[in-house]
Amino acid sequence: MTLEHSRKNPKRLGILISGRGSNMLALAEAVRENRIPNAEIVLVVSDNADAAGLSIAQDLGLNTVVIVRSGRNREEHEREILGALKEHEVDLVCLAGYMRLLSSDFINDFRNRILNIHPSLLPCFPGLDAQRQAIGHGVKWSGCTVHFVDETLDGGPIIAQRIVPVLDGDTEESLSARILVEEHRLYAEAVALVVRGDFDVLGRRVIAKM
Amino acid sequence: MTLEHSRKNPKRLGILISGRGSNMLALAEAVRENRIPNAEIVLVVSDNADAAGLSIAQDLGLNTVVIVRSGRNREEHEREILGALKEHEVDLVCLAGYMRLLSSDFINDFRNRILNIHPSLLPCFPGLDAQRQAIGHGVKWSGCTVHFVDETLDGGPIIAQRIVPVLDGDTEESLSARILVEEHRLYAEAVALVVRGDFDVLGRRVIAKM
Repeated sequence: MTLEHSRKNPKRLGILISGRGSNMLALAEAVRENRIPNAEIVLVVSDNADAAGLSIAQDLGLNTVVIVRSGRNREEHEREILGALKEHEVDLVCLAGYMRLLSSDFINDFRNRILNIHPSLLPCFPGLDAQRQAIGHGVKWSGCTVHFVDETLDGGPIIAQRIVPVLDGDTEESLSARILVEEHRLYAEAVALVVRGDFDVLGRRVIAKM
Repeated sequence: MTLEHSRKNPKRLGILISGRGSNMLALAEAVRENRIPNAEIVLVVSDNADAAGLSIAQDLGLNTVVIVRSGRNREEHEREILGALKEHEVDLVCLAGYMRLLSSDFINDFRNRILNIHPSLLPCFPGLDAQRQAIGHGVKWSGCTVHFVDETLDGGPIIAQRIVPVLDGDTEESLSARILVEEHRLYAEAVALVVRGDFDVLGRRVIAKM
């Protein structure tokens, strides 16, 4: 792909949220400030009609759609989300506090094109309450991870990580706040890398192209 | 304990090795340079008569003893090691590449007085070949951990950790070398902290006294 061609065809990002969507906001700011060159956010999907992130997205002028599960099974719910992503020709799906596990079918449709951010140095402390897990375990360093989503819980290939110290006086809240600052920086860096496409996935290793 | 009193009674360190003992050398240098104030190394125990660290220890003028297992069961072997440690009135046991698991009886005799160093950011990658595990998993940061030894594999309360980046071109060897530099610094810092004694163990958290 020539630079000229790629400039004409920015990567189309879809963001899935369930709550405040602070990482969605960080990505939107990064796109606006050209820290994620050659990308545009074409759709924000929330599975929660009350998500605070929805009004933030609307304030930013982003397309939003609410797709609640409403008692349907996962497949039916996901089919509607996939439909919306494909209708908007989404290239890359960024999970930003999206609180549902995705099925294999969903993941296969976007293999190596779904990113998630997690508030720990994976593989340590996957799952819920990662910061609380870190505090409880007594680690001296934690951080955040952006990874490709596969069928495992927070276990897909790691794209990028940032570190933060855990201080003696830390609570779950103070550590979470310190990690969140790095999450916002990290997610933009990782999405920019994936949009550039100059990496290889070798086994589990995500490595810059030589 | 007054400063005057503590100066008269340096903490007596025993170091257990099985191989080259590079962390033993690092501790010996740190004691000599007063980076571990108020401590002396009174005994180096090797369970391997051919350990390269033995001649290094002798060159340093340290007391050494070889206690091989020689077909005995673990309890008998450990009893001889414990006897040597107690004969030399060891306060603190530092494992430095000691390749055997310690029994509950041993650990109970030196509860919160046995330290180990491990070449990963625990709880990630416990056990053997931690650096290879880190490379294979594709993490972007690794490091080393000094922890109290309990009955779990590399799972006791964490005293201190240092971090190193994992680079795209890293092999197990290059990552191990980068971590080893930090191990030598970290072990001295952690032993100095434990010798000072100004910390509390709250659950799994090792926290500086207020």
